[in-house]
Amino acid sequence: MKVSVKVPATSANLGPGFDCLGLALPIYNEITVEETVMPGSGIEINIIEEDIDYDILSVPKDKNNIVYKAIELLYNFIGQSVSDIKITVKTNIPVTRGLGSSASVIVGGLIAANELLGKPADDAVLLSIASEVEGHPDNVTPAMFGGFCLSSLEDDGSVSYSKIPWPEDWKLTVLIPDYELDTKIARSLLPETISIPDASFNIRKCAMLIDSVYRCDSEQMKKCMKDKLHQPYRNQLVKGFSELTELLENKEDILGCVISGAGPAILIVSVNDGFEKVQNDVKQIFEDLNVKCDIRTLDIENEGSKVI
Amino acid sequence: MKVSVKVPATSANLGPGFDCLGLALPIYNEITVEETVMPGSGIEINIIEEDIDYDILSVPKDKNNIVYKAIELLYNFIGQSVSDIKITVKTNIPVTRGLGSSASVIVGGLIAANELLGKPADDAVLLSIASEVEGHPDNVTPAMFGGFCLSSLEDDGSVSYSKIPWPEDWKLTVLIPDYELDTKIARSLLPETISIPDASFNIRKCAMLIDSVYRCDSEQMKKCMKDKLHQPYRNQLVKGFSELTELLENKEDILGCVISGAGPAILIVSVNDGFEKVQNDVKQIFEDLNVKCDIRTLDIENEGSKVI
Repeated sequence: MKVSVKVPATSANLGPGFDCLGLALPIYNEITVEETVMPGSGIEINIIEEDIDYDILSVPKDKNNIVYKAIELLYNFIGQSVSDIKITVKTNIPVTRGLGSSASVIVGGLIAANELLGKPADDAVLLSIASEVEGHPDNVTPAMFGGFCLSSLEDDGSVSYSKIPWPEDWKLTVLIPDYELDTKIARSLLPETISIPDASFNIRKCAMLIDSVYRCDSEQMKKCMKDKLHQPYRNQLVKGFSELTELLENKEDILGCVISGAGPAILIVSVNDGFEKVQNDVKQIFEDLNVKCDIRTLDIENEGSKVI
Repeated sequence: MKVSVKVPATSANLGPGFDCLGLALPIYNEITVEETVMPGSGIEINIIEEDIDYDILSVPKDKNNIVYKAIELLYNFIGQSVSDIKITVKTNIPVTRGLGSSASVIVGGLIAANELLGKPADDAVLLSIASEVEGHPDNVTPAMFGGFCLSSLEDDGSVSYSKIPWPEDWKLTVLIPDYELDTKIARSLLPETISIPDASFNIRKCAMLIDSVYRCDSEQMKKCMKDKLHQPYRNQLVKGFSELTELLENKEDILGCVISGAGPAILIVSVNDGFEKVQNDVKQIFEDLNVKCDIRTLDIENEGSKVI
């Protein structure tokens, strides 16, 4: 008995939507969970690198593994202990870049284990467990459902979410640099408090971003992918971000340029081929900084996780 | 030459949407502006009380009057000085209650003066001037356009806004107590900073509120009219608010209970006759506190300002 699940990468925050906005990208991890009978610890975790370099040694292979933890919570939910299991991850999503690699394996592990168990848990339960393990729902929601998602972790541990149709002509360009940035470090840079005007800025920008997506309003969207809560603090660890935002401000058909999740990847939203017009200048910024950077222009991923 | 304009009352914030959300209510002020030739100051300001008690002595009758200030900015915009004018306000909107009475007279004065001048300014200019005088756009936008509005004052002084269709079966009940609360005092209670988790709470609640309105999702809306930015601090000056929120939490067909603007009026959103089921308990709260309170259940006002 084994089940494999394909899960997309995700880009969270989109500027103002700290811990609540995210969208899925067509780059996939494949997570396989199988019940085995093994002597010893009862867990086997294998990582197979596909498209990317992966520091396999850094991934816990025991009960501290996040996929295992998520699966354990699911078993607990149905009143069982985890059987002996083997988890295999084929990785294409670059890790510690701010592209939801951890969300993808958590979600994939949960969906696979739920299938193995005969689907005792519904989407709401899986989303709640995934958000608990991840700490916030902004990546796990689009990793599960695809598309552009707004989600909110409630006090009772449940997740409210909405998948809002993303305009077809809004393209996503991800800039993936060749260095890593630990989300914990990126979070530690945030101050404990922010000013009321800064908080109020993010509240209205995030609300108007939702409105812009509903109305496919490119002109308004240009004013919305702005942030005063996390980017000003993380900026220092995201090479090229200041230069890029300056370059792209007020450029035709560029709707926004934001740190993807906690970085260091950067997400640019453009109308149709808007990115093509600026790509040489963008590449130059990274060349000048001597940073190798993989640049991919993609459509939004609308399917979400799939058992394969 | 004189022009009269009818302008609705407004309720701002709706919980999480500090300085950006507002909706119009079918209670109206009527503002008349006429060019006159008068000796002396050149300004005459008259207040005519209709439905309400008004402390007429507290309203500046000179160039410090907010209606005059707004009209002066409009004249400046077209490169003129203000002529001798007479401003008459027929007041039905209770003042210093958090129901947008100041926004209504600013907007009414501007629209009337603009008509008198032959409409040199478009809506965007009027909205920008009104927001400058008021200090924030959340009341003036629905006062101009009616309905439920999301607005954002941009760095260049312009206002981005969107009027989002409000679900027909969502009714508004305003509780208007018989005491006043100066917006300046209510603002002075706010701290200078708030924690990142509190800011993040408001960001996601406000974003989900917009989503709930677009999707007419009553179940989700119930989770959205919450706030950690201003209500916890203003609460102390808004009699009955704590008791009301406790009473109405999880009540069927009650979508939210929030401080209207800076208070002390309170806004309750319910589905259809949802408020009727709780009205006796609500009245009891104010009786116990010995606060006289005018309670009105209304539909949203969708027309906005009108030259009459």
